[in-house]
Amino acid sequence: MLRFERLPAPEEPEFRTRLGVIHTEHGKIPTPIFMPVGTVGSVKAVSREDLYDCGASIILGNTYHLYLRPGMEVIGHMGGLHKFIQWDRPMLTDSGGFQFFSLAKLAKFNEEGVSFQSHIDGSRHFFSPEKAVDIQMMLGADIMMSLDWCVGYPATEQQTMTALERTTQWAKRGLDHWKEKEHPNNLFGIVQGGVFSHLRKLSAQQITSMDFPGFALGGLSVGEPAERMYEMADVALPLLPQDKPRYIMGVGTPANLVELVGMGCDMFDCVMPSRNARNGQLFTPRGTINIANARFRLEKGPIDEACSCYTCQNYSLSYLRHLYKSRELLSYRLNTIHNLHYYLNLMAKIREAISLGQFGAFRRMFYDALEQ
Amino acid sequence: MLRFERLPAPEEPEFRTRLGVIHTEHGKIPTPIFMPVGTVGSVKAVSREDLYDCGASIILGNTYHLYLRPGMEVIGHMGGLHKFIQWDRPMLTDSGGFQFFSLAKLAKFNEEGVSFQSHIDGSRHFFSPEKAVDIQMMLGADIMMSLDWCVGYPATEQQTMTALERTTQWAKRGLDHWKEKEHPNNLFGIVQGGVFSHLRKLSAQQITSMDFPGFALGGLSVGEPAERMYEMADVALPLLPQDKPRYIMGVGTPANLVELVGMGCDMFDCVMPSRNARNGQLFTPRGTINIANARFRLEKGPIDEACSCYTCQNYSLSYLRHLYKSRELLSYRLNTIHNLHYYLNLMAKIREAISLGQFGAFRRMFYDALEQ
Repeated sequence: MLRFERLPAPEEPEFRTRLGVIHTEHGKIPTPIFMPVGTVGSVKAVSREDLYDCGASIILGNTYHLYLRPGMEVIGHMGGLHKFIQWDRPMLTDSGGFQFFSLAKLAKFNEEGVSFQSHIDGSRHFFSPEKAVDIQMMLGADIMMSLDWCVGYPATEQQTMTALERTTQWAKRGLDHWKEKEHPNNLFGIVQGGVFSHLRKLSAQQITSMDFPGFALGGLSVGEPAERMYEMADVALPLLPQDKPRYIMGVGTPANLVELVGMGCDMFDCVMPSRNARNGQLFTPRGTINIANARFRLEKGPIDEACSCYTCQNYSLSYLRHLYKSRELLSYRLNTIHNLHYYLNLMAKIREAISLGQFGAFRRMFYDALEQ
Repeated sequence: MLRFERLPAPEEPEFRTRLGVIHTEHGKIPTPIFMPVGTVGSVKAVSREDLYDCGASIILGNTYHLYLRPGMEVIGHMGGLHKFIQWDRPMLTDSGGFQFFSLAKLAKFNEEGVSFQSHIDGSRHFFSPEKAVDIQMMLGADIMMSLDWCVGYPATEQQTMTALERTTQWAKRGLDHWKEKEHPNNLFGIVQGGVFSHLRKLSAQQITSMDFPGFALGGLSVGEPAERMYEMADVALPLLPQDKPRYIMGVGTPANLVELVGMGCDMFDCVMPSRNARNGQLFTPRGTINIANARFRLEKGPIDEACSCYTCQNYSLSYLRHLYKSRELLSYRLNTIHNLHYYLNLMAKIREAISLGQFGAFRRMFYDALEQ
């Protein structure tokens, strides 16, 4: 079982920031943390060593994707996901809930679970809350997620309420199943409730009444305005136990991370740094740049003079632009290394600022730099 | 100027193997050597450090591609190709001749040079033998190639003779131009002559009558049977000066390399290891394997137990198959690292065998392993 150690930090009255360390069987995770997404068993375009160099202490795998390909027979035979992909630090897997909602064909939700068709070959499958736990136990991730029921944006109050109720029932079933198995890894509960404050509160109360080792907010960053997401986080986060890790799923932009850390969130994941890298969008303290832009054609400097990533330490904007425009595979790797480093370094700086009681000052500097 | 140092090695009467070191401004190249191809300024799917780890002592860049994109203004502004791509070991550039023949749209050869349309945007360009040298001097490669005129296979004797004559005239013009410029880097002459022994001899006599620091055989591996290629190499190589490096362009399979080293060739380049890697074809001492093959689904072992490459030291066939079938970008990199390591390690073993007077024994073992 994980242990969440809260670290002492000076209080800043305007914020509810938290500093901590999650201790797992595969090592420590300093929080607040960003988790790069390794959808099908590799963080796209980079290697394990690239992730180590960027300072990644935990990565995420997607149960839905891994279940369909390579499938559980392969991962089981290979001794679990850590051994299969040769990653020796902590790992988190989601439950598949979000992919049923966003990706699977013809997903049909009923009280029992979700039946769906593979987006790869159209084959039919069924996930129950118990099966979602079983599969994640086979994957062997340090942190597993309950099967939840997402709604999109917009959704009616009634739709949102139905999904909330089902999420709570499924959370209970998954938790009971996990406890029976006495599996050493950890199952987190997920709060739903769409963009309705009273439903977020209700869901948080229901989910936190169960003895999960950690809690997440799901169903955010699904198309709602950022203000609604912040409202929901602001309502739900204070209802989660102080002594357990809190994870906001699938979020988000650098500014989202800064805001949500300020509200007391500990863990984040998002495909944005890696996906945007592959589309030529690179993060800098001054905002994002598009590496294809003609103004970089003759530019000898790096993406960011102050960045210590491998890409910035070695390559010019001119070369990166050329690689990107030539669709060289090296482009995707160099861009991804930079963006992941940006995100992970942002979180490291946030942790340092919190430890010094200077999160507020850090947050102002973050926005000042952006506005230049 | 380069210096080609012949190293002492026991003679093996059946073979004409040579052992040497090419000394260049960017360092030493042990020969026989294989040169990975970095078409547009990156060896596809791998980084500089990957190439160092695989033991690459020289890479190749394609003048035609680099001239079109990013273009000479960019590379000139950046201080040459070495600085642009951040490669600090020796580099060789071709002249564009082969790409005019194989890739450019509507290439028109006349006595003056080649006019062609870009395969990227259809823009019109013209290369003369002098311009091919000028552009390569701007690129700043340690070894530059004369503009030559390739013929395909099959080609008539008359077509081949015309191309041969033009190649000789162009070689002379390029050489004169290079000597005028007193550029420190090295220009190699190229022997043509298609698959006609007497034309190969004639071309070799004409080209070696000029004072190039090294010589190449061009227009091979363009569709002719391997036996014809070996015949041509066997005819032409003995006519090249003993004290200068010899390069067979665009060749080939591992067996091609073994055979041609036995005939006295020093340098090779080919896209085969990197291109095949991206198509899932991996080299092993027992032959090539297709990583998509279902028999690797549950295979915990590496591609080759005896291989010391990063891929084999870290990843299972099962994982490599999964990455390839999922089209993960990491797949292309891991496969390419293995194949380049295979080629470069093959050449290292060949050099060692030659130094011990055991090339014949090595060659037998090479074929014995393949036949298993």
